[in-house]
Order: sequence, then structure tokens, then C-alpha cells
Amino acid sequence: MIPSNITCYALENVPPVARGVVRDLRVRWALEECGIAYQSRLVGTGPGTLTPAEYLKIQPFGQVPSFQDGELTLFESGAIVLHLAEEHEALMSTDRSARAHTKQWMFAALNTIEPQVQQLAEIDLFHPDAGWVKERRPGVLEAVQRRLKPLAAHLADRDYLLDRFTAADLLMSTVLRTLRHTAIVEEHPALHAYKQRCEARPAFERALAAQLADFVPWQPRDLKG
Amino acid sequence: MIPSNITCYALENVPPVARGVVRDLRVRWALEECGIAYQSRLVGTGPGTLTPAEYLKIQPFGQVPSFQDGELTLFESGAIVLHLAEEHEALMSTDRSARAHTKQWMFAALNTIEPQVQQLAEIDLFHPDAGWVKERRPGVLEAVQRRLKPLAAHLADRDYLLDRFTAADLLMSTVLRTLRHTAIVEEHPALHAYKQRCEARPAFERALAAQLADFVPWQPRDLKG
Repeated sequence: MIPSNITCYALENVPPVARGVVRDLRVRWALEECGIAYQSRLVGTGPGTLTPAEYLKIQPFGQVPSFQDGELTLFESGAIVLHLAEEHEALMSTDRSARAHTKQWMFAALNTIEPQVQQLAEIDLFHPDAGWVKERRPGVLEAVQRRLKPLAAHLADRDYLLDRFTAADLLMSTVLRTLRHTAIVEEHPALHAYKQRCEARPAFERALAAQLADFVPWQPRDLKG
Repeated sequence: MIPSNITCYALENVPPVARGVVRDLRVRWALEECGIAYQSRLVGTGPGTLTPAEYLKIQPFGQVPSFQDGELTLFESGAIVLHLAEEHEALMSTDRSARAHTKQWMFAALNTIEPQVQQLAEIDLFHPDAGWVKERRPGVLEAVQRRLKPLAAHLADRDYLLDRFTAADLLMSTVLRTLRHTAIVEEHPALHAYKQRCEARPAFERALAAQLADFVPWQPRDLKG
């Protein structure tokens, strides 16, 4: 691993349903693909953590991840992954056209696919019993499928979105992980195989293990404390 | 204007409620800021247009805009604007740290702010009379405000997201335009002033005029035809 002064900000404690999908996973994975060592800094209530109020000075929306590399502080998982990809061929080819297409699929992941997927996950995970869900969920599911079908067709004869693994696959496969509480990805064999292919990468496995290791044991009362 | 072979794909016909906010506006605006001439190619049913089925070969999700520059075809408005920004200082400084922060705010616009704003606009414009809306809309509005308040605070003492106009302002202000059917932006004086500041740019005005000029006169029956 290349030594660095990089810090990745993450959460100390989230409910089990969110463990393994919080977006600092993207930054950790990108750093692992580049072979760059980093340290995590946690936002929470335990010893050595930043309080949420302190963290607002780094990230105005209070979201994780943020990223610090010496003088440079950055937030937005897409921007951090892109920042690393700009400087590391492990995440993006040096070819001008391939770079443009990597960015195309990065934005497709975060602006075309994720908003729909996130809306469905929010319904299922946070409002399962709300009165409006029964009437609304079918339309949201349909919007998800309208995006996933063309994506599955694109991946039917490809291992990755471009002709090799890039930062776009890193983002797209983490977006697909948000559907893990459903069988929607599995309904599309090309998507399922693609997600498994991405998740089998050693860099992904290390990043996931590191995120999970940083969480304190889950105590539901922690949310109220 | 610098001559070019650039084509921007746009729609021939959308309902009045969408005119002036379709996302090819972003690409047209970016090209105008760079002083690059372009032609539009329309997707629709009229003479000289691409049919939606033909357009799927260019854009697998069927969305506009797409962008063609000689051999390079790109989709995703964020990726196209970024592609232009990479090569034109009119949209992004050459300083490494400023470039990273421009990208940070580009992703904030499209991945933190737009999904919430879009969800509210979808409710108001496409499902105003649905049974689930009364119960669901307050939560969606609250999520919008939770994002807009920190954004307004950031812009309280700044003209732009960074210390000059960049591609991030181009994206963020077009995201805010999606709320034009409400008074939500106007409730935040800093956001309202910011949006007006961006929209007063001559390049924006030319881009908006060009988008509007490309639409055929609206006939509700066209949607069924």
C-alpha cells in the first residue's frame, strides 16, 4: 500500500439495515483499488469521534463520506471517487474518450439509477407501514425497472460498463447493493452477475470489511441517546 | 463563437410545464459559456427528427440530452458539462483544488439536491391528484428543505458555490429551476438571489431561448399521436 495522509470520514453507528451500504464504502473501495493506505475518522458519540455538530463544519449537509488529503477536504462520494480516478489509472483509463465514457456512466449511476433505487429503498426500509406506500410503491418500482432494464441490456454481453473495471462500475455496483433487501437485481441475470463480479474484487472485500469493522456493536437505544 | 461539429440532442415537444427545464438546457448553456457553436438534433415525430426508437441507439435510457462531437458520443448532462469543463476554463479553473471542489459541488447538485427536488416536482406536476400525495408530500418537502437550508447558508456570503462561476453553478441553478412551480426557492433569499444571478448570465439566456425555439407549438393531442 502507498502511505498517505488521507482520512475518510464515516459513521460510528448505523442500524444493521444500513451496514455495508453507507457511502464511505465507495471511497474506501476506490482507495483500495488504487492501493492507497488511509485512516478512517468516525462521526458519532464515542471516544475519539467527531460529534455530528463538529462534522457539519466539514460537510454542510452532515452526510458521509468526506475525504481529507493534506490541505484538500472534499465531500460527495462521486466527487471523491472521481478525484482519485483522475489521478489513478486503476480507476480510469488515460484515453480521452474512455475518460469521458467513465464519467458518463458515473453520472448515470448517481443521477439516473440511484435516485429511483434510493426512493424504493427509502419506502421499504423507513416507511414500510405508512398508509401511502401501498398506492405509491408500484409506481416507484416501475421507475426502478425502467432504468434497470436498459442497464441489464447494456451489460448482457459485457463484464463491465466499459471494456474494463472503472470508477463507474464501483459506483454502479454500490447503487445496485441498495436493493439488497429485494430480489430485483437477481431478476436480471446480467445485473446480478455484474454485481457479483464487482463484489468479488479483493479491493471491494477489504473496503467492506473495513467499513463493518469501524461500526460499534448495534444497540437500538443508541439512536435515542 | 468557435465553430464545431457538436450536436446536442433535445426533444421536439414537451408539455409547457417542462419547457425551459429539460436537461439539454445544461449542455446548451455550457456550450454558450465556452463560446462554442453547436447544432441541435431533435427527438420526436416531425420531419427531420429522430424517432424515440432510433434515439435509443444513442441513449439506452431514452433520456435527453446526448452530445456528439465528431467520433465522441456522450450522454448524462452532468458528464457532458464536466467533459466541456475539463477543457474550458470558462467552466472550471485550472487549479487542482478548485477543480476538485467544482466536481464536489457538481455531484452535490445532482446527487444530494436534485433527487429530493425531482421527487417533489414529480409529485406536484405528475401526480397532483393521487390519493397518496396528501400523506406523502410533507415528508418529501421536508427532505427538500433539509438540503436547501445548508445550501442557502453556504451561499449567504458568496455569489457562487466557489469564488467564481463554474460548471457547478450551472448544474445547481438548473436544479433549483425545477422548483419554479413553487415559492420554495424564494423563501431562501440567498438561494433566490443566487438563482437570479446565474440566470442573468447572457450564456444562460441564449441557451434558454435556443431550447424554447426548438419546441414545436404545444398540442396536447401530440402526446397521444
